[in-house]
Amino acid sequence: MKPLNPPERILMGPGPSSVSSRVLRALGSPTLGHLDPKYVEIMDQTCVMLRDVFQTQNALTFPVSATGMAGMECIVTNLMEPGDEAIVCVNGVFGTRMVDVMQRAGVTVHAIEVPWGETFPDEMIADAVERFPKSKALAIVHAETSTGAHQPIESVSKIVHEAGMLLVVDAVTSLGGHEVRVDDWQIDAIYSGTQKCLSCPPGLSPVSFSPAAMDAMEKRKTKVQSWYFDVSMLKAYYSGSGKRAYHHTAPVNMIYALYEALAIVLEEGLENRIERHRQVHLRLRAGLETMGISYVPKHSLHTLNCVHIPDGIDDASVRQALLENYSIEIGAGLGPFAGKAWRIGLMGHAATVANVDLLLSALKASL
Amino acid sequence: MKPLNPPERILMGPGPSSVSSRVLRALGSPTLGHLDPKYVEIMDQTCVMLRDVFQTQNALTFPVSATGMAGMECIVTNLMEPGDEAIVCVNGVFGTRMVDVMQRAGVTVHAIEVPWGETFPDEMIADAVERFPKSKALAIVHAETSTGAHQPIESVSKIVHEAGMLLVVDAVTSLGGHEVRVDDWQIDAIYSGTQKCLSCPPGLSPVSFSPAAMDAMEKRKTKVQSWYFDVSMLKAYYSGSGKRAYHHTAPVNMIYALYEALAIVLEEGLENRIERHRQVHLRLRAGLETMGISYVPKHSLHTLNCVHIPDGIDDASVRQALLENYSIEIGAGLGPFAGKAWRIGLMGHAATVANVDLLLSALKASL
Repeated sequence: MKPLNPPERILMGPGPSSVSSRVLRALGSPTLGHLDPKYVEIMDQTCVMLRDVFQTQNALTFPVSATGMAGMECIVTNLMEPGDEAIVCVNGVFGTRMVDVMQRAGVTVHAIEVPWGETFPDEMIADAVERFPKSKALAIVHAETSTGAHQPIESVSKIVHEAGMLLVVDAVTSLGGHEVRVDDWQIDAIYSGTQKCLSCPPGLSPVSFSPAAMDAMEKRKTKVQSWYFDVSMLKAYYSGSGKRAYHHTAPVNMIYALYEALAIVLEEGLENRIERHRQVHLRLRAGLETMGISYVPKHSLHTLNCVHIPDGIDDASVRQALLENYSIEIGAGLGPFAGKAWRIGLMGHAATVANVDLLLSALKASL
Repeated sequence: MKPLNPPERILMGPGPSSVSSRVLRALGSPTLGHLDPKYVEIMDQTCVMLRDVFQTQNALTFPVSATGMAGMECIVTNLMEPGDEAIVCVNGVFGTRMVDVMQRAGVTVHAIEVPWGETFPDEMIADAVERFPKSKALAIVHAETSTGAHQPIESVSKIVHEAGMLLVVDAVTSLGGHEVRVDDWQIDAIYSGTQKCLSCPPGLSPVSFSPAAMDAMEKRKTKVQSWYFDVSMLKAYYSGSGKRAYHHTAPVNMIYALYEALAIVLEEGLENRIERHRQVHLRLRAGLETMGISYVPKHSLHTLNCVHIPDGIDDASVRQALLENYSIEIGAGLGPFAGKAWRIGLMGHAATVANVDLLLSALKASL
């Protein structure tokens, strides 16, 4: 076998983002047993910091032991039962995927759609909760990684709760880079990934459940179809006091990395961090627009910049040139945007003025 | 937040086992994008090495992106459909759990049982396949981590295949420490964990599917209930040629660690490694028996030594003394063995003469 020597990249795609050496060093700390008191302490502190970053008091806030999409599956399979109804807002890959995950869990899905790249106006949400009043939950993507669209959540939440439904939010590409105020916005279940604006390697999916969501889960009549993601058992490990019940072997070293990544977020300060993401986005945007490159969504995320590939430019060869000549990764378009858009991530450790300026200059040289 | 400084332990419990600094160093290598050609190369080589360690030619051999139990869930939810029947052999925690996971997948389970610590004789298997002839599969645990029992597989396999069923095997605590000959033994679906005899941190679950298992999965009439574990989509990423379809963001750094851990296994040589595990087991066994400590199972694993706690000895205080005075972790008993047995792991990097001798001397001092 060849020695393992992955090259150092500047990761400016849709994720993973660049990971700092401080987090990589934490990741490589000595492995502890998953029931070792010293490990339990680290895990508990990780959950404390996760609550701070989610801006929530939710007791049930923890990292699911698998990558981002496992958070979606964990929330859907625990919150919903076969025969339940749900409204799912679809404007890209991740809303589409949520429909699939819901249906596999036996849920009757009412999908509402706007074109990829657009966001949902309040009127559409109000109309949907009126048309499908038996829905247990409405699910929506805060940060659509496939299109860069930035969905406002606060007003949606009011409409959903007035209709007596639970609000499920995908915050994979926003947590740690945009405002995500779980308690203020009354989000009932939210999932994210570690490999985006937290700049921790991929492998964990932070989730948080409101008391109302916990109540709904306690009233289930059927077992959760997934043993691995069953919160009724997981909570005895993550939020048990005293004796921790063994469920599965926790991904110990990945928790170390998340611990360090969250500590870095809180040292910087959430507000400062969110402002940094805004500033680098504005800088990138100005630079791209000067080059005649325009944005796909009207309401763009700061963390994920989905832009039209200029006419006559070959998608793959530019991305390959960036990778080979500059060791910069940017992302390809998905679905209707395949070959037509690039997705430029400005997330966490990679969201710097230096990276923006380098990318702009590298793009100019590669076009 | 306190600086992250986990103590260095000698991990001789039921897993995770001690991880070498070489693997920890690999784990902390720079993160690549999951579609980066350099990463895909590393992932492909990881799967090549996994096939060597599983002793199989199975094309569909890859690490599930979650800890050991996710491998069980991945195999069950893909191989079985609601309404299917299966025979599950129960002689400890993991057989019991497989019944639960099967039932959550809508399977009608025929559980056959022997007391915890015992293994299944061929006659019981033959009787079961005769009594439940409509079963699609028989599932059995090769290495029962909760009891230390070592189940022979080869003869079971003959009976199961003569009855036209598929054979599912749990090899979480045996892969890399005991013989596990997937092709020779005609195992149709097998799962393991990285944190046992491979001495890689917890976080991945290697699985392998035979052509017969792939055939059964292709004939499914229903969608796999888990999106995250759906092999029909995962295989496009892991064994696609040319373009790799994005499914979920792979746990990139954990794959680095597995790459290095597998390279270490193959450098040592599987036969040598298995013999090393046998030798240290014999040494530990002799030492314990001299102290009057006896084994729970008649057919003990080399990798997991489940022994009776001597009369009058307090379980928890001995384990605490080992942890505090020697930084050695051993495991508590589970289920009927709680407070009555210890589980001493001799796995991978921790399976050394030095660790055996140290543990014996530490135990003498702590009793």
